[in-house]
Amino acid sequence: MSDLLARLRDLIGPTHVLSGTDAAAYGREWTGHYHWTPLAVLRPATVAEVSAILRLAHETGTPVVPVGGNTGLNGGTYAEGALMLSLARLNRVREVNPTARTVVAEAGVVLEALHGIAAEHGLAFPLTYGAKGSAMVGGFLSTNAGGSNVIRYGSARALCLGVEVVLADGRVLNLLTQLHKDNTGYDLRDLIIGAEGTLGIITAAVLRLVPAPVAYGTALLGVESLGVALDLLNRVQAATGGAVEAFEYMPAHYMARLARLRPELACPFHPQPVNVLLEIATTRAGDDPSTLLEEVLGAALDAGQVAEAVIATSEAQRRKLWQMRESAAEITFTTPDLVDCDVAFPLDRLETFLHRMTARLATIDPGAEELVIAHLGDGNIHYTAYPTRTDPALNDTIRAAVAEEAVALGGTFSAEHGVGLSKRATMAAHKDPVALDVMRAIKVALDPKGILNPGKTIP
Amino acid sequence: MSDLLARLRDLIGPTHVLSGTDAAAYGREWTGHYHWTPLAVLRPATVAEVSAILRLAHETGTPVVPVGGNTGLNGGTYAEGALMLSLARLNRVREVNPTARTVVAEAGVVLEALHGIAAEHGLAFPLTYGAKGSAMVGGFLSTNAGGSNVIRYGSARALCLGVEVVLADGRVLNLLTQLHKDNTGYDLRDLIIGAEGTLGIITAAVLRLVPAPVAYGTALLGVESLGVALDLLNRVQAATGGAVEAFEYMPAHYMARLARLRPELACPFHPQPVNVLLEIATTRAGDDPSTLLEEVLGAALDAGQVAEAVIATSEAQRRKLWQMRESAAEITFTTPDLVDCDVAFPLDRLETFLHRMTARLATIDPGAEELVIAHLGDGNIHYTAYPTRTDPALNDTIRAAVAEEAVALGGTFSAEHGVGLSKRATMAAHKDPVALDVMRAIKVALDPKGILNPGKTIP
Repeated sequence: MSDLLARLRDLIGPTHVLSGTDAAAYGREWTGHYHWTPLAVLRPATVAEVSAILRLAHETGTPVVPVGGNTGLNGGTYAEGALMLSLARLNRVREVNPTARTVVAEAGVVLEALHGIAAEHGLAFPLTYGAKGSAMVGGFLSTNAGGSNVIRYGSARALCLGVEVVLADGRVLNLLTQLHKDNTGYDLRDLIIGAEGTLGIITAAVLRLVPAPVAYGTALLGVESLGVALDLLNRVQAATGGAVEAFEYMPAHYMARLARLRPELACPFHPQPVNVLLEIATTRAGDDPSTLLEEVLGAALDAGQVAEAVIATSEAQRRKLWQMRESAAEITFTTPDLVDCDVAFPLDRLETFLHRMTARLATIDPGAEELVIAHLGDGNIHYTAYPTRTDPALNDTIRAAVAEEAVALGGTFSAEHGVGLSKRATMAAHKDPVALDVMRAIKVALDPKGILNPGKTIP
Repeated sequence: MSDLLARLRDLIGPTHVLSGTDAAAYGREWTGHYHWTPLAVLRPATVAEVSAILRLAHETGTPVVPVGGNTGLNGGTYAEGALMLSLARLNRVREVNPTARTVVAEAGVVLEALHGIAAEHGLAFPLTYGAKGSAMVGGFLSTNAGGSNVIRYGSARALCLGVEVVLADGRVLNLLTQLHKDNTGYDLRDLIIGAEGTLGIITAAVLRLVPAPVAYGTALLGVESLGVALDLLNRVQAATGGAVEAFEYMPAHYMARLARLRPELACPFHPQPVNVLLEIATTRAGDDPSTLLEEVLGAALDAGQVAEAVIATSEAQRRKLWQMRESAAEITFTTPDLVDCDVAFPLDRLETFLHRMTARLATIDPGAEELVIAHLGDGNIHYTAYPTRTDPALNDTIRAAVAEEAVALGGTFSAEHGVGLSKRATMAAHKDPVALDVMRAIKVALDPKGILNPGKTIP
């Protein structure tokens, strides 16, 4: 053991091998749901160092858990007795190519930094979510993160052209293509993306940039039901030629919790049953999205379809509307006694799910509270239950009920947060058993000693 | 052997097990480049029958080569002594969901039929290429086909939400999700897509539909250089908010060959060095793409950037411009003595490649001719050489030279046609050796007896 740490210190320098109290800060998920004691925390600065660490780990059969911004929600970086490999020092932007609209960024580059780099060139990197100030390239690719702009630009996977990966035995797999078309064999890139560090450790990626919107139109709407909201979404898409960047659902109980915990972000009108943050953006010179929005929403207000509407008239107002949405994680994870679920559905099934779940929760734990926030345009609901007592078995019952209702309605029990530790039992219960077998076969083929993020993703 | 065929006849009915002369029609690629004698041709009608065939093939270690429309160009369906498994009778459209904008189609559904089904619902399935009247779902997914609309909608992969796959041992892998977000484990869907039938046989897929364009603007342009054409592409994208659906390059020598072989499709103006088929489409009610096109092209004509331009004023004219482009395969494959390559580049390297290749071909085989046609907006060039003599070794030398020049310029030797048989040597020479090892490990994990499309894709 001490021999292993000594060899690691030789490989990457003693100041970058943290142990004891120095390592303790890495031993928890920010939600407080998971705690662990890592064997050590390693902070390599180069791909060669990552490769050397994995060669040694492979030789000695030592488990390795990669970690980026550590903003996950499913215990994906739980590392009891394992080496934690932080990618934070691999944070170089290797290349920006505004003509080809690509950026080659190392795994430790923070999402918000990518936004800034793209903006410098009049472009955008559209992936965005609350944790953007901490989340890193390696993490958002390993979890195939989603966020608020998926409706227009897709998840992380859709924004990645190539990856560089260190395999379990330390070999470097170079898939750093900048090409949009490249049919040379199996799609290993997409196999690694979303594999939560269990098949290899992403050290760099080629990411796509898109034309920066010329202008945004942002509004907060109050309507009476999800059905009305979805009808409105279709109308706005048709009227704008598919310019919707975000369509985010905040029910009245979300607004109430926000008003209590972040009063400065309280809803500017009397919250309706369904409140939606709508943003459209245009990339064509001369288009005026706010006017477009006024026209569509004006007609909907006149028709009585929309009860309340506020259109942002300044960037400050736009930012404030977004903060209402982006405070979701902060106002959700106020206690470790909660069950957070991440489900998705065909759009026409959302309302049924919420009705069924409310009724079912009341039978499982009368008095338990719900909190819902949704990427409505993607059919993706973040459903959180607050049980009335601290009881892990109760939490498991609720989690299983949510997954069961989701799958029964043609949905998924894991939309964008990934599997990690917390959804392994759900994977075992609901994932196609043949798919699980294939996953296991691939895992064994690529990581025969099982050292990469052991115990995650595959039940 | 005869015992095997008897068992297959029991499984799927004697009339659907073809052998001898009945099977002979399946024993060639349409280009004439590859010929073979299959052991038998099987025409199952259901997933259960495909599964039963593979169980038997697995038990007996018999190679199985799947075939759809057989429109490939790389020997991907070469099946000497193997069972050919035709998916043509698995041609049901299981479900169309216009609200969710999805269609669930079996592997034998023809691409053009999907276009018709989408149109019936005011939607579009945007994948399209010359072979659309024969190419089938299973084939275009197994090769991750591209075509003329990739610049806007992506390749086949980007249009597929889920697949159903029969594995080498006959088990059915059900990944038929209709969801846009589904992070439940490894991305097996994208592993199967583009694997050319070597990891499993696709029997059905969930495909994305998109809003049908309200109107098209289609033009044929003549300009003096690729640089001017690419500058024009950027201008049109900016002026239309990214509405370019196709940007196809036909050089003067292509136009000359077209005029000779299909005189009714001759270029309507004196061909310029660079002739481009440009199509834009709008999905926003009230937009008029032809007027948009007139404005942008008018300015470019006035500035002397564009030498010649014809804008289609009727659907018949539009179809005729498209036929000029879609006749590419027909006017290319006029002789088996040719070397057809499918390379892609960062857009700014295309011109350098073409200059270098012309010079290099002249040194390898003075007098050899070239034919170029390109999906210019994707950086994808179909480069064909016609050597002066029939000599397989000469063909290999030319093929190797094209790949070498492509890779040297940061490009790929296989953009959209896939690897099949014809590019295995190129894979061995240029693909990352670690990637090849990983591909082999996955192949062994999923098809341990190596019965699925043996000898393809992996060198």
